[in-house]
Amino acid sequence: MKVVIAGAGFGGMRLARKLNNKPGFDVLLLDKYNYHQFQPLFYQVATAGLDASNISFPLRKVFQKSRNVRIRMAEIREIKPDQKVLVTDQESISYDVLVLATGADTNFFGNAGVERYAFPMKSTTEALQLRYRILRNFEQALTVKDADELQNLMNIVVVGAGPTGVELSGALAEMKHYVLPKDYPELDFSKMQIFLLEGTGKTLGAMSEQSAARSRKYLDKLGVTVRTNSLLKDYDGKTVSLQDGTTIPSSTVIWAAGIKGNVPVGIDISLIARGNRIRVDEYCRVSGYNNNMYALGDLAYLEEPAYPNGHPQVAPVAIQMADLIAENLKREVRGKTPLVFRYRNKGSMATVGRNLAVVDVPKPKLHLGGFLAWLTWMTLHLMLILGVKNRFFVFCNWLYNYFTYDQNLRLIFREFDKPDKTHSS
Amino acid sequence: MKVVIAGAGFGGMRLARKLNNKPGFDVLLLDKYNYHQFQPLFYQVATAGLDASNISFPLRKVFQKSRNVRIRMAEIREIKPDQKVLVTDQESISYDVLVLATGADTNFFGNAGVERYAFPMKSTTEALQLRYRILRNFEQALTVKDADELQNLMNIVVVGAGPTGVELSGALAEMKHYVLPKDYPELDFSKMQIFLLEGTGKTLGAMSEQSAARSRKYLDKLGVTVRTNSLLKDYDGKTVSLQDGTTIPSSTVIWAAGIKGNVPVGIDISLIARGNRIRVDEYCRVSGYNNNMYALGDLAYLEEPAYPNGHPQVAPVAIQMADLIAENLKREVRGKTPLVFRYRNKGSMATVGRNLAVVDVPKPKLHLGGFLAWLTWMTLHLMLILGVKNRFFVFCNWLYNYFTYDQNLRLIFREFDKPDKTHSS
Repeated sequence: MKVVIAGAGFGGMRLARKLNNKPGFDVLLLDKYNYHQFQPLFYQVATAGLDASNISFPLRKVFQKSRNVRIRMAEIREIKPDQKVLVTDQESISYDVLVLATGADTNFFGNAGVERYAFPMKSTTEALQLRYRILRNFEQALTVKDADELQNLMNIVVVGAGPTGVELSGALAEMKHYVLPKDYPELDFSKMQIFLLEGTGKTLGAMSEQSAARSRKYLDKLGVTVRTNSLLKDYDGKTVSLQDGTTIPSSTVIWAAGIKGNVPVGIDISLIARGNRIRVDEYCRVSGYNNNMYALGDLAYLEEPAYPNGHPQVAPVAIQMADLIAENLKREVRGKTPLVFRYRNKGSMATVGRNLAVVDVPKPKLHLGGFLAWLTWMTLHLMLILGVKNRFFVFCNWLYNYFTYDQNLRLIFREFDKPDKTHSS
Repeated sequence: MKVVIAGAGFGGMRLARKLNNKPGFDVLLLDKYNYHQFQPLFYQVATAGLDASNISFPLRKVFQKSRNVRIRMAEIREIKPDQKVLVTDQESISYDVLVLATGADTNFFGNAGVERYAFPMKSTTEALQLRYRILRNFEQALTVKDADELQNLMNIVVVGAGPTGVELSGALAEMKHYVLPKDYPELDFSKMQIFLLEGTGKTLGAMSEQSAARSRKYLDKLGVTVRTNSLLKDYDGKTVSLQDGTTIPSSTVIWAAGIKGNVPVGIDISLIARGNRIRVDEYCRVSGYNNNMYALGDLAYLEEPAYPNGHPQVAPVAIQMADLIAENLKREVRGKTPLVFRYRNKGSMATVGRNLAVVDVPKPKLHLGGFLAWLTWMTLHLMLILGVKNRFFVFCNWLYNYFTYDQNLRLIFREFDKPDKTHSS
């Protein structure tokens, strides 16, 4: 059975590993990058705490010894379900079973200004671009005479107080306290403001009351200016306009306020549910394609009794769906009946700053905060990172950052004055 | 005395550190990047053995605690010696003393085809671009049907058998043997050829007879196709044409065959010596600017008795010139007579592959090769790298690469489908 997996995120990678060297399966894992991205730590790459390579793992290395998993670095152009063909920018690939694991990308909700000027945070390279921008702003700030222009360069606005927005603004606040003043003694960082805008009434609204409240307390403690119930109206690259008429001057806006599923061309429009996710049945199958197409993770929309409005778009859902699909594909080969998907929520967590994190565990019902939650967060994320070497380097970087109060990867690796040769021939 | 240092390479960095916290000096260190680049290891970044961050050190971190050294990330536009002003893309900077440490860049000798299509290796970002190209070539090779096109993607041509060319082609040969076949089992790497073209009759011609001969032996051993006495005529992005009429198909050419000094606009043309270097007197002063302008390192051309045609363009010369300039500036402040520059050659070395390196020591006259030379090379380079953390990470990477026969930083961090936002506002 030729299984084509589109996307090497948490779900696609997990599925490929579950089918690795399993008789009866010929697997092709496809991604537009040649590495697996560890999304939960993008914000630490953006704030110069970690190296991009620390949270990226070459796909080919994972399956170097595999007898049945092949890798393709390509972008999907179109799916032709009737021909069972996946068209990419490199080649056309035929499949017996197609698993869509393309995840979700930033949703700007059609706001052209935001899409043009704000920074998304949904890929390692986007995190790097944000890092470069932040560092370059302060280099520029040194030579700026105009006070408004200076304020504009020093302000940072984060939109969306989900885990990404909270973790990023917390990390930026710590940069402001511990790192930037040492780097730029000529600048007055009491002027620097970090805003966190949230449309609802709470930060980390998806977590428990206790954790939401704690995260707000931690953000205040770190000096982040949190504005709940405030919606962004527009952004022109210089000024953020809010629905309530107020404005915030800032040349750097990070948009973490929404995602939408990456639905490939060729999927029947009637299958798209809210959040641009693909509706799947209880076996994670995309209906109407004689059961040879699956979708999982952020891209999949499945209503189960406990989750009538679909599942949270988090890694554990993608991983558990991958496990189910792997199991059901094996059952299919053996002619056994498939299992039904039921999400087991093992809990959720987020970190705001050093010694400041929140953890929710459903059963036994538990809400951790502070240092203990922070240790839990670090340990778990270390375990989840792919590769012993990456784990070791992340651990070293964290130790270093913790004890030196420093993130010393403040490097701007952009070529400013040379043409990019990667497309020249 | 306000000393402006243009360039934070080996020379500029050394000088800034020598003047750091020295009374009577107000130092401004200027570079177009915000980090110091450790040039000797560019080739390991290009071949995915090291992380770019491992050999890059943030300038601001070096001088975080400095009372008199400030940093500017800017590009030089023009020097106005009569006004004692340095014009940059950010601001105009006045100086009492200007030290030109802008080093050298790739010299394509006016060959438009080479300049357009060949990869230079004179910056960390150029090394990264080369890494991305090499990896992407093999991704493409997987889907290529045409045999010639395949050969074109798999061949790599390195031009210039100086240390950079030799070390790079050696590292590429090891990638071919140890890494790439594991990553791309679908490709036949016996087809992959690595050419090293050299215009003279020897590899590492600047070193001793013994070392030159050894390096050639090592390159042959690693399977590099070395062609001495062969000059490149032209390159169109697909085919390398040699002077002797032969051609080599290759989509990847690395140009390490020449450098030229980065002479800023505003320097009297009559002061330019061969290699586009600035002629300086025995005190490293640029003559004709009432002794307030210095040049050092790759950029400086100084004829001393032992070096009638100028010094080799290597780090030790830049470092020793920086030491002399620092000493003479202090003497100037104290009203003492300046010292004359005399280069003390402590030797030279190059590494071709694992356990394969060559070391020349002038006195006691000594020519090491093989494992011992390789250990010497590694130890010395580890010591030269700036920063304990970088040193530690490079060491870990080397240990890892040595024992696993693997370089696992095979990551392509280019954004393919998103606009670069770093210039959008």
